[in-house]
Amino acid sequence: MKKIAVVGCTGAVGMTMLELLENTAYEVVCMASQRSAGKRLKVGDSEHLIEPFSVEGCATCDIVFLCVSGSFALEYGERLAQSSYVIDNSSAFRYADHVPLLVPPINGQRYAGEKLIANPNCSSAIALMVLGPLHDEYQLESAIISTYQAASGAGQPAMEELRERARSFTDYGDNDSAEHFAHNLAFNVIPQVDSFEDNGYTREEMKVVWELRKVLGEPDLAISTTAVRVPTLRSHAEALSLRFTKPVQSLDRVRQLLAAAAGVEVVDTPATGSYPMPMTSTYKHAVEVGRIRYNLIYKEHGLDMFISGDQLLRGAALNAFEIMQLLPD
Amino acid sequence: MKKIAVVGCTGAVGMTMLELLENTAYEVVCMASQRSAGKRLKVGDSEHLIEPFSVEGCATCDIVFLCVSGSFALEYGERLAQSSYVIDNSSAFRYADHVPLLVPPINGQRYAGEKLIANPNCSSAIALMVLGPLHDEYQLESAIISTYQAASGAGQPAMEELRERARSFTDYGDNDSAEHFAHNLAFNVIPQVDSFEDNGYTREEMKVVWELRKVLGEPDLAISTTAVRVPTLRSHAEALSLRFTKPVQSLDRVRQLLAAAAGVEVVDTPATGSYPMPMTSTYKHAVEVGRIRYNLIYKEHGLDMFISGDQLLRGAALNAFEIMQLLPD
Repeated sequence: MKKIAVVGCTGAVGMTMLELLENTAYEVVCMASQRSAGKRLKVGDSEHLIEPFSVEGCATCDIVFLCVSGSFALEYGERLAQSSYVIDNSSAFRYADHVPLLVPPINGQRYAGEKLIANPNCSSAIALMVLGPLHDEYQLESAIISTYQAASGAGQPAMEELRERARSFTDYGDNDSAEHFAHNLAFNVIPQVDSFEDNGYTREEMKVVWELRKVLGEPDLAISTTAVRVPTLRSHAEALSLRFTKPVQSLDRVRQLLAAAAGVEVVDTPATGSYPMPMTSTYKHAVEVGRIRYNLIYKEHGLDMFISGDQLLRGAALNAFEIMQLLPD
Repeated sequence: MKKIAVVGCTGAVGMTMLELLENTAYEVVCMASQRSAGKRLKVGDSEHLIEPFSVEGCATCDIVFLCVSGSFALEYGERLAQSSYVIDNSSAFRYADHVPLLVPPINGQRYAGEKLIANPNCSSAIALMVLGPLHDEYQLESAIISTYQAASGAGQPAMEELRERARSFTDYGDNDSAEHFAHNLAFNVIPQVDSFEDNGYTREEMKVVWELRKVLGEPDLAISTTAVRVPTLRSHAEALSLRFTKPVQSLDRVRQLLAAAAGVEVVDTPATGSYPMPMTSTYKHAVEVGRIRYNLIYKEHGLDMFISGDQLLRGAALNAFEIMQLLPD
């Protein structure tokens, strides 16, 4: 039986990974900071004793899943990978040439046995589920992406902050301070996720650019993004405007193609109010895609669509889980 | 003293118009359906007696502001315009060649004395405040727009529905039915505003396409849009990806240009958390614009930016108020 350490088990992504590991053949070791060590963590029908993180403890595990900060990952990632397979959920190693960045249904076949593997950013992982099969078929020329990102990307306490403020909301005047976001998020949208880079884009926006290029294996792919936090709890949504080299003959063919793709669910009968939404994609393993239509500018060389996927599952823990399934026995 | 009838005075847009008319030199007549007639409406320090709508009553007014349904406007608009100036907030006449569609700071100079005038869609009006001056300077080649639209666009009861559901939210399972939206909006986003057209776009999305073209006087302008309802109360936001024929030499020049434009406020020091948001643009007369940066695909021929404007003010009543100021004495 393979043994897996979940480091950072008390966070939103760590907890989601523990849920995925319930009733599997993995032996699970929960690790967190000294502060949480010794406490018990209830997940589904299981109760886990939280152990303090240690390099030695990890070394007894076949796989270490890191859902911790980038700086923590940077400090320990390479060292842990000397004895175990390490899947890192932070951005610490995503852009390093020697570290594979994997979205298994899209580029899992390129995995060559590396011990340290990067898990993508949530917005990237969700978009790639749909972009991968479309790129294979029509060759992506450019993508313009606007996101509608949930509170969960900022962690469990951020979700609580949003719930609490939405409940007690009276007016924006009362609500300007916020602990877990740059501003109050209740009844608001915030066009900032992560910090700003010199080019005026946020790091979140650039992550999507860099990661789409790396996973699709197209280092010069033309991509521009706007990442926006909206008051939803745990599913992201994204509006995609895609331009392709090859013409798209029919939208039905696009729907067939996406319906056949792993981890994708076509939800696209708008006349009956059926399209992707955070409300319906939450807790779902597949990314919902719908509102599929020809882009009015690119005509038959372009598609607009709307997608929504659970940020903690498809955008984080489920992708990591699927990476584990790629590892050699 | 000019006399103005506000028809549909009890709705969100009508009430906002009454607020704007407070302490002005206009004499105001409030009109609504038979059901509301006789009731009193308190707005600011004034109290208005609601009169039942009648063609004859309107005929005694210099200006009639219609904030009613498109079918009502279609039935009465032309007739009312035989005796009064009529400003129609619905989409009934917006695309008719003989009816001017006005956003005064952008195309007010083209007004030639017509008695029936159309007020634009909220998302169009808000975008145009920024697109107008940029088009003048750099010549817009294409625009891709994703919206983040507030509940107010669906009326006052819709705002109440969102507030109530946000307060009582426990899980999406409890919340699927909705009276004023296609689905529950609390902690959700809905990629549908208005009904669907044959090309897969919503009418709201096509309105933006048609109205930007008409107001900018560019009937073939390349535009593609995604309109999304988000759980905010009364300010829309929009992510714009713009391509220009002329190169944009500097972002500072863009900021200067927009800062000098009527009805626009540049809010663009992201390092200090300053950018457009519904929270800050609500109740503001100007449209906020920020996150101004070169589009990563179009480079010096493209700009990405984020805007936010009060849907009831800049997106509806305030634009109509500015149209009134264009009318001859």
